[in-house]
Amino acid sequence: MQENPTPADSSQRQTVLTGDRPTGQLHLGHFIGSLRQRVRLQDECNQTILVANLQGLTDNANDPGKIASNILEVVADYLAVGIDPAKTTICLQSELPALAELTMYYSNLVTISRLERNPTVKSEIQSRAFGRSIPAGFLTYPISQAADITAFDATLVPVGDDQLPMIEQTNEVVRKVNSVAGKDVLVECKPLLSNVSRLPSVDGKGKMSKSAGNTIMLDSTDKEISKAVKAMYTDPNHLTIDSPGQVEGNVVFTYLDAFHPDPAYIAELKAHYQRGGLGDGHTKKILEECLQELIRPIREQRQIYAADKAQLLAILKEGTERAREVTGRTLDRVKAGFGLDLFQRG
Amino acid sequence: MQENPTPADSSQRQTVLTGDRPTGQLHLGHFIGSLRQRVRLQDECNQTILVANLQGLTDNANDPGKIASNILEVVADYLAVGIDPAKTTICLQSELPALAELTMYYSNLVTISRLERNPTVKSEIQSRAFGRSIPAGFLTYPISQAADITAFDATLVPVGDDQLPMIEQTNEVVRKVNSVAGKDVLVECKPLLSNVSRLPSVDGKGKMSKSAGNTIMLDSTDKEISKAVKAMYTDPNHLTIDSPGQVEGNVVFTYLDAFHPDPAYIAELKAHYQRGGLGDGHTKKILEECLQELIRPIREQRQIYAADKAQLLAILKEGTERAREVTGRTLDRVKAGFGLDLFQRG
Repeated sequence: MQENPTPADSSQRQTVLTGDRPTGQLHLGHFIGSLRQRVRLQDECNQTILVANLQGLTDNANDPGKIASNILEVVADYLAVGIDPAKTTICLQSELPALAELTMYYSNLVTISRLERNPTVKSEIQSRAFGRSIPAGFLTYPISQAADITAFDATLVPVGDDQLPMIEQTNEVVRKVNSVAGKDVLVECKPLLSNVSRLPSVDGKGKMSKSAGNTIMLDSTDKEISKAVKAMYTDPNHLTIDSPGQVEGNVVFTYLDAFHPDPAYIAELKAHYQRGGLGDGHTKKILEECLQELIRPIREQRQIYAADKAQLLAILKEGTERAREVTGRTLDRVKAGFGLDLFQRG
Repeated sequence: MQENPTPADSSQRQTVLTGDRPTGQLHLGHFIGSLRQRVRLQDECNQTILVANLQGLTDNANDPGKIASNILEVVADYLAVGIDPAKTTICLQSELPALAELTMYYSNLVTISRLERNPTVKSEIQSRAFGRSIPAGFLTYPISQAADITAFDATLVPVGDDQLPMIEQTNEVVRKVNSVAGKDVLVECKPLLSNVSRLPSVDGKGKMSKSAGNTIMLDSTDKEISKAVKAMYTDPNHLTIDSPGQVEGNVVFTYLDAFHPDPAYIAELKAHYQRGGLGDGHTKKILEECLQELIRPIREQRQIYAADKAQLLAILKEGTERAREVTGRTLDRVKAGFGLDLFQRG
């Protein structure tokens, strides 16, 4: 099933850990921000995708059903876009006890005040309505994330630049563990910064989410795509076709930049729009066709995968089994480093 | 190996969870405060003793060797005082992944501010030199303790009254989990309050600890016991034998109250001491004999057990195996309650 031969020295391959909180089906924002890259990375790296359902619970503890119901949905999304379980290990966080166990060990090496200073956590706390009631699991999730990353010996972690503090926090844990153990038990990781900026929502404001109805899902129908593009935010001052239009902040052009296969053509289109004479109906039609062409095969694949839940579960189980071995070995190394491997030795 | 027959309806037996952080060998304070009670409880209840090495790490993260080296030491202490592994499950916290996993789930149901209000944690933080650098694992250890208690379906938890807030916090978690699950997944527990007050250190100040040299260990020699009793704090104003002495705060009498088998005799002795005419040398001699008689068989048993580390490890492994089943079943129930049992169902 492997399309490309493995390089002779596979030890030189980077080990990539990436993943998603299964809070809903994935959408175009995920496609452009991470899924597309993962399809490429699986040929170059040892890639693991973690379905981070425990992390999903950190701010959905009162509604675990939301997390539970979306686990196989995101697996279907992965397969639909071309992630190949023969190349990429797809696994479920809650079925990897070593991740929870490593979190316990690491928790003693990270202070509460250090967590409170983590800029990513700070801003995420602000964006949620926790008030004074921050769940312990939410404040401490960078520790759990450090457990995830190190458990897989990840050397490369795809992140947005808002997530850089998480990488720094992880490497602090690595150095602490190695220092206590007196040897290199864990490996440090590097961020793989995406050069794609976050895709705006269809209405041009806020984050994309299915419930807000401001996004295009990976299984949207032609009709839904058409409707979403028609409703798309453009240049509110572009009142007639003849008047010059603005492309900055114009969601249609942001999407064309992100998805259209011919950048030269889009550059021309932009120039035309800017000098006037190009209507929003026209640019939207181009985008609509482009998105329908992109999504049609994904949707079709997704329908096939989503129809066979047993297969999705089998794929997730198989990947989790493999991940269990890898993460179990890391846990054994950490225990041995701390002299707490008496059951493993005996 | 069972000395007493199991009652016909064993479901009416209480389930007891108790344990120790393996930060050192156990001493007379543990004997009077908990070990003696456990020997009794093992005939009446389903008793599990957890060697809480992960909790031991919460304030010893930089010195895991201290924790590692004391695990089998406390197991030897248990066996020496008469805890019978056929009646009591003795198990190791770090080898029970379900405890770490339950901690992850519960962490999302307890807020940081609730933990900061926990009086036990508050005072324990004050008694340690953390300053602003409180390890996350330390602040959150009540969550981990709730995981321990609930994982074993404990209905009865022996505690000192300073630990009552931990029981309350545990039952809050139980109610939260049951409320989110919409059914009774976990059982609430009750404290089993000890009627014994904390045994003072030999020098009458502070906590007993082997390193401070102010205690009597369970394997102390006759000579060490003699030396400790001779150095024991009495009534500093009791300058001559004839003068009246004070028994309150007099460590010798506190120990006689705790350990002497004949309370009526001790009552007489106290009266004599209070009216004058009884020297500290005399009372100390009585205590010395009493303690030597108590400790001699424990020390002898302990030497036999401690000489066979392989047997200690085998006992701990066997108990841990049993505990793994019990705690694994609880984890499965919690997962099912949250709808996250897709691997168990499928």
